[in-house]
Amino acid sequence: MNGLWQEKKSFTAYQLMGHTWDLEERVDIMSWTDKVPLWDHHCHVLVQPKHAADLERLGRALTEARGDYPISDIRQTVTYQEAISVAASHLGTECDESSVQLALGSVDYEAYCRGLFLAAGYEKLLIDTGYQPPDAWEIGDLKSAMGLDMLPILRLETMAEQLIARFDHVEDWIMAVKNTVQTARTEGYVGVKSIIAYRSGLFVHPVEKETAQAAYRAMKAGGITRLTDADLLNYLLWSLTPTLITEGLTVQFHTGYGDPDTDLAKGNPLLLREYLERYLSEGLHVVLLHTYPFHREAGYLASVYPGVYFDVSLAVPLAASGASRVISEALELAPTTRFLFASDAHSRPESFFMGAQLWRRGIDQFLDKAVKEHHVSPSTAYKWASMICWSNCKALYSL
Amino acid sequence: MNGLWQEKKSFTAYQLMGHTWDLEERVDIMSWTDKVPLWDHHCHVLVQPKHAADLERLGRALTEARGDYPISDIRQTVTYQEAISVAASHLGTECDESSVQLALGSVDYEAYCRGLFLAAGYEKLLIDTGYQPPDAWEIGDLKSAMGLDMLPILRLETMAEQLIARFDHVEDWIMAVKNTVQTARTEGYVGVKSIIAYRSGLFVHPVEKETAQAAYRAMKAGGITRLTDADLLNYLLWSLTPTLITEGLTVQFHTGYGDPDTDLAKGNPLLLREYLERYLSEGLHVVLLHTYPFHREAGYLASVYPGVYFDVSLAVPLAASGASRVISEALELAPTTRFLFASDAHSRPESFFMGAQLWRRGIDQFLDKAVKEHHVSPSTAYKWASMICWSNCKALYSL
Amino acid sequence: MNGLWQEKKSFTAYQLMGHTWDLEERVDIMSWTDKVPLWDHHCHVLVQPKHAADLERLGRALTEARGDYPISDIRQTVTYQEAISVAASHLGTECDESSVQLALGSVDYEAYCRGLFLAAGYEKLLIDTGYQPPDAWEIGDLKSAMGLDMLPILRLETMAEQLIARFDHVEDWIMAVKNTVQTARTEGYVGVKSIIAYRSGLFVHPVEKETAQAAYRAMKAGGITRLTDADLLNYLLWSLTPTLITEGLTVQFHTGYGDPDTDLAKGNPLLLREYLERYLSEGLHVVLLHTYPFHREAGYLASVYPGVYFDVSLAVPLAASGASRVISEALELAPTTRFLFASDAHSRPESFFMGAQLWRRGIDQFLDKAVKEHHVSPSTAYKWASMICWSNCKALYSL
Repeated sequence: MNGLWQEKKSFTAYQLMGHTWDLEERVDIMSWTDKVPLWDHHCHVLVQPKHAADLERLGRALTEARGDYPISDIRQTVTYQEAISVAASHLGTECDESSVQLALGSVDYEAYCRGLFLAAGYEKLLIDTGYQPPDAWEIGDLKSAMGLDMLPILRLETMAEQLIARFDHVEDWIMAVKNTVQTARTEGYVGVKSIIAYRSGLFVHPVEKETAQAAYRAMKAGGITRLTDADLLNYLLWSLTPTLITEGLTVQFHTGYGDPDTDLAKGNPLLLREYLERYLSEGLHVVLLHTYPFHREAGYLASVYPGVYFDVSLAVPLAASGASRVISEALELAPTTRFLFASDAHSRPESFFMGAQLWRRGIDQFLDKAVKEHHVSPSTAYKWASMICWSNCKALYSL
Repeated sequence: MNGLWQEKKSFTAYQLMGHTWDLEERVDIMSWTDKVPLWDHHCHVLVQPKHAADLERLGRALTEARGDYPISDIRQTVTYQEAISVAASHLGTECDESSVQLALGSVDYEAYCRGLFLAAGYEKLLIDTGYQPPDAWEIGDLKSAMGLDMLPILRLETMAEQLIARFDHVEDWIMAVKNTVQTARTEGYVGVKSIIAYRSGLFVHPVEKETAQAAYRAMKAGGITRLTDADLLNYLLWSLTPTLITEGLTVQFHTGYGDPDTDLAKGNPLLLREYLERYLSEGLHVVLLHTYPFHREAGYLASVYPGVYFDVSLAVPLAASGASRVISEALELAPTTRFLFASDAHSRPESFFMGAQLWRRGIDQFLDKAVKEHHVSPSTAYKWASMICWSNCKALYSL
Repeated sequence: MNGLWQEKKSFTAYQLMGHTWDLEERVDIMSWTDKVPLWDHHCHVLVQPKHAADLERLGRALTEARGDYPISDIRQTVTYQEAISVAASHLGTECDESSVQLALGSVDYEAYCRGLFLAAGYEKLLIDTGYQPPDAWEIGDLKSAMGLDMLPILRLETMAEQLIARFDHVEDWIMAVKNTVQTARTEGYVGVKSIIAYRSGLFVHPVEKETAQAAYRAMKAGGITRLTDADLLNYLLWSLTPTLITEGLTVQFHTGYGDPDTDLAKGNPLLLREYLERYLSEGLHVVLLHTYPFHREAGYLASVYPGVYFDVSLAVPLAASGASRVISEALELAPTTRFLFASDAHSRPESFFMGAQLWRRGIDQFLDKAVKEHHVSPSTAYKWASMICWSNCKALYSL
């Protein structure tokens, strides 16, 4: 996909502990992931074409910084500079911001976006509609414009808080949330996402019904509409999980890195232990999103518990210079059956392209080392590439 | 030991900041650890030969996963695939599971095991008898079959809880535990191990005698035989430590990574600070086992406190693809006097072989970089290889 | 600066995604940082020349170990061995301790120190006078002897505790501290440093005036002169910060790694969140010092909050073998505008030299990868080298 890391590798030269792999049919291997499509199990929509030439939008799509963070700092990152290079390369311009901006102002932006998705090898996107950039491209339009399959994920707490106004008792509210979840699949949702990490942290634990009811009453009495009470958030998640299991809905958890609205110290996925111990045995499937800088901890959880999956989205592509290292660290303990591709990209097609490119490079390096130093067979390496890039996603979300 | 990383290195070509090392006698260096024996200061016994061809047993020996974790996931790890390759190479079969399984069914398994230990360069094993795989090979038989020295480590909490039934008062119980510890050396034990991390976590602190007595009484009144009460566990360890010092018994602590019976968030060795501050000055020696993913934190503790040692067992070999990186990170701050080899292997000889092989590769890479980039002399590098592989162990356990 | 990593790089050979950089004027690039001076924003003074040949002093300047830590362990580190090599190289002696010791006993030590600072490319030092090694070289003398600009940093808690004896009420004390801070610039200080991490930890939060007054009264009544009360420390910092903002004084925080007087578990910079959320919007500038092993967490904070800067001093040079890795990890998320050079060196010139050398190597590797793999333009890489090595420091401290 990218000439830089696709040096030809002749596997016939491999002499691995006395085994010579039968690779006559693949003398000229370019990359383990070269022909493998990507299914992105966590991302967001683009902004509308009218913002095509807005480089500040591009910059802000490449960071989790607060709105008052200076764009001048964002420009001095490897990630932003690489994004400019990606754009220049695909636009056929000089590699500087003014040339790129000029070209973006006159290019057929829809075709440009489609071209980036195609070049990156995207095939399917699972869209978290809970975050919508301002002037977002409407998902139906985007889908047909890009020629890509896009499936929505239901954001749990956002949905649940919209139902609070309609119920006086916490149990009625929970019942309504359950009903919504039970119809989620028929409404097109393929999974749910919890942002409890942002609201009260990942130490998810059981809460007594009386405590929850008192918190619910207080919330309503106070005219509060945003669901931030820790007791209610925990009660909701704990109560709802049996329904998620029955419905076969995988639940994504925001963990680790994100915008500073989250307290990163409360975003360590190890804090989920009591919840995992309680529900995994009953068949719950969870995906730990992002995980950086706790990706080793997430890999540990995936390696010891059934039903735990994870990704390093957001860090890939936002930690561009460290992407391969982060991917390798994530895979130290975890089986390749538990790791998924995701970009968490939004707003700009360059983010999606970079997410894919950095991902392929990291996976290629990991698999290369697995074959050359750890004697994994090339056919297994190819199988793993497919699993990590798309088929784990297919199985996990029953697509 | 492994042709893959033993490219010939001609040190006569080194021009290190103007110094040319006198290396005429070693023109063809294969590896810093090539001739260095391994003393494994933390491991377990094998399973009996009747399970020789049980590849599921092999898989489960290469993970800390719960029993309900699918073997199909375990098979899709670098570690498992490398283990199959190790077996195939030593059995002289094709490198696939069915060939390996067939060959294991007919091989002289005892000779096969002995061959792997020999090829890996093992010389002495310190056996934690606290974990015994089902159908374990009896230690005396194993010792003579393998032709290796094997010395037992006393697991503290397991021993102590067996004494509870016999005493009404906490002080009498503590006294009995002390007596057992005082006879440990004469009974052949060369050190003790604490699993307080698994029971109540590593925040080890003093507890009042009255509090301990109340907890002791409650435990007995409730008919509880498993020692999980935090007050009792802390009281036990705190009270017993002066005896450990007097007896010159090094205490191993489970820290970091392990099976999910442990809460990894409570396994950070930094939590031991109050205990270390209290007892190190009096001559206590502690070894932090495993430590991953807190191996940098463990290296920090070893670099600032007298009497603190550590290893990265379990991650080496279970995090096979990251072993060299983990070893390098562990040694960023810590002196080479404080780092020990251990595999934490059990059940299968392939685990032991891989632990040794990954260890040698990681240490070789670390020492290579030390010599080439940091101007450590080759003779110092050789000395360090011996220290890390066996002589630190010899000194620490007074062997 | 060091022949080892300065292989000639011909950028004309770079074909980066179709762009050929115009680099005719720089055919022979030695290093991105080759001609870039270093401004060290956090370090300490040297010891007097009478200790020139004291190798134990050298060893203890290369560790954060307690005083009872054996020097024999310190000698078995990459860092110490590299320091001996640095000394040998600059003294023109054989690379062993006795030759170095002999040569240091007869060398013109002042010229030797000056030579090391010059070879390392130091230009300006910001001196934390809060830690003074025994028999410290007087700063005025050192400045003229080395021919380097040296500017002092005011250590907040140390200054504040000296004022306690003079005031009965906590508010009067706070007022006196504010007055001192308001005159800091005219007395030559260019910034302040907080060691609250060492005293009560980084969870900085607001404290009620009544609580603070009670703690203040208790401290005075108890005849306590060392300021360790958490309420008082937090009250002081929280109250003083508006004055720091008004005065335009950047505040350095000890975070992460340090001597074991600190509880590293309380030194995670993520704990500063409430303080950062409260004051950054008002214009506060903070620098997170050291940060290891929380340098990724620090990079995250720098990437999402305005006004957050950081370094990896102390780990560079003390974690010599991991220096380049630590630098790369630190820069995964953070803009190059937020990262600064510092050595935290003290006592010995070899520490300063190593800090600079390891820093240049790490930055060179980071920038090389940025250019070759992430398509950052060489001119941007050069600009970043200057920013990271000195101009970020100039801007942040208004020098």
